[in-house]
Amino acid sequence: MHAADRLNNSIDHSGSIACIGLDPRPALIPPALVHEALAAHGDTAEAVAAAFLAFNTGLLEAIAGKCACVKPQLACYEAYGWHGLKALAATVVHANRLGIPVILDGKRNDIGSTAEHYQQALLGSAPGLGGAACPGLGGDWATVNGYLGSDGVKPFLGSRPSGTGIFVLVKTSNPSSGELQDLALTSGEDGAGTVMEAMALLVHQWGAERLGTCGLSDVGAVVGATYPFQAKRLRRLMPDSIFLVPGYGAQGGTAEDALAGLRADGRGVIVNSSRAILAAWQKPRSEDWAGAARAALEAMNKDLNALR
Amino acid sequence: MHAADRLNNSIDHSGSIACIGLDPRPALIPPALVHEALAAHGDTAEAVAAAFLAFNTGLLEAIAGKCACVKPQLACYEAYGWHGLKALAATVVHANRLGIPVILDGKRNDIGSTAEHYQQALLGSAPGLGGAACPGLGGDWATVNGYLGSDGVKPFLGSRPSGTGIFVLVKTSNPSSGELQDLALTSGEDGAGTVMEAMALLVHQWGAERLGTCGLSDVGAVVGATYPFQAKRLRRLMPDSIFLVPGYGAQGGTAEDALAGLRADGRGVIVNSSRAILAAWQKPRSEDWAGAARAALEAMNKDLNALR
Repeated sequence: MHAADRLNNSIDHSGSIACIGLDPRPALIPPALVHEALAAHGDTAEAVAAAFLAFNTGLLEAIAGKCACVKPQLACYEAYGWHGLKALAATVVHANRLGIPVILDGKRNDIGSTAEHYQQALLGSAPGLGGAACPGLGGDWATVNGYLGSDGVKPFLGSRPSGTGIFVLVKTSNPSSGELQDLALTSGEDGAGTVMEAMALLVHQWGAERLGTCGLSDVGAVVGATYPFQAKRLRRLMPDSIFLVPGYGAQGGTAEDALAGLRADGRGVIVNSSRAILAAWQKPRSEDWAGAARAALEAMNKDLNALR
Repeated sequence: MHAADRLNNSIDHSGSIACIGLDPRPALIPPALVHEALAAHGDTAEAVAAAFLAFNTGLLEAIAGKCACVKPQLACYEAYGWHGLKALAATVVHANRLGIPVILDGKRNDIGSTAEHYQQALLGSAPGLGGAACPGLGGDWATVNGYLGSDGVKPFLGSRPSGTGIFVLVKTSNPSSGELQDLALTSGEDGAGTVMEAMALLVHQWGAERLGTCGLSDVGAVVGATYPFQAKRLRRLMPDSIFLVPGYGAQGGTAEDALAGLRADGRGVIVNSSRAILAAWQKPRSEDWAGAARAALEAMNKDLNALR
């Protein structure tokens, strides 16, 4: 199924446009899981990986059917080397089993032949020495940095929609995103006034003729909730792209900010939250970390759904 | 030791400014290593990883003392999951043992708190559940994409030079790099005429007051050999940055092109070559793949040293 249709179906079935960031860090792991992992593996990367996987597994079961998708942040896992990567792989398998679409957030980018290897790693499979297919992580979507232009993006896409998709960084949620992304361009024929708008026009081009039956393409855009004014303008430049919106909650974006890029048909936006869901058990402190995560997600859904 | 000083020392001791890209792919692995890995592991990701490590180990021993540094391309390893990452980790350990500086080419980027995890993964260490330090891959340098601005770059640097450094993508070697990087900016006070020049000015800022005794900073720049005209201009904007120059050889850049960004003191450039070294055993076909790689490196050194 076209990646945008699958994501849309997941939104319709769950009644949620929330994307839950699976960004585990030691400080977010509930004490019971910490003790168990330390007892089994000592104070090692292996213990961290085991705790991450136990945490993710419980979270996935708590949020399945109540969110649109999940988005593991690759950096959190890579910090613990191959043990971390194993935990990530098992997390994706579990999400797949529960039917939750997975966005692998690695913000990868490279020249063509190398970008192809990232596609293999995240969304496809790589050739073995004898020609066997060695399956990658099995993500449905990957985040991509487009600074290298088309060469670095097209290998993630293939010649036609194949069930996977990408989100290209256009306007990121962080305070310094404007240092480059907001720079004003000399006026061109294409109407891009800033670097981010030039990137948006590329995203629109890359996604042209790649629409699912829902009318959205498999080339989405990352557009931070912290810049709602820009999101409205970017929507005009990318009418068919799903916006993956970080920056809601912890980074300061409100529901209204996060939904600034919504299409007239009420579609085309998914809103990420990580820390507010993963750390929900910390305030008020609770041993039922999975229940706390689910309750936080339900509150997020209510907040967002009131406005769409 | 300051990362730029260490790299410079390596250049002086080896008499080489070559950076060898350790970018293994199944098609580049010599038949003897393929057969050995298939016999031991079947047609699996584990076999590919074993073959990559055997190939890298032989290459490293063949080129030690004759090159400035090595640069594993992370995508090649990630395509084979955690097995690939294990092979990468062992490769870095071996390079460290041989005293060869390592540039981990992952072109990573993310907002601040996440970029910190990439720093841990590539150049530092991450905290365990009990506070132990879980060592990362142990690279000396990492490549970084600066599209997110300072927030995404500074976590790789720390508050003062600490023996590691980064190369920020400024002008990449691929044909489509101009789609974004060449766009003209409305004239600003700072003199950046294009997106890549704005990035160059940021690189120069990030590296200010981070110079080693050699006069070069630990914030370098990726500047493709395929754009020598731009490299000369970029050198003026980044007088203290080491240029990591891809695109020599296979991608069409000549020695003269690759050295376009050389400083007046003959320093400040390292030139990458991957395929020409790794595939040297294929033409003319030879069973002595390590010897062929060494000979190709010696030819590269001669080509480059004639002009510096």
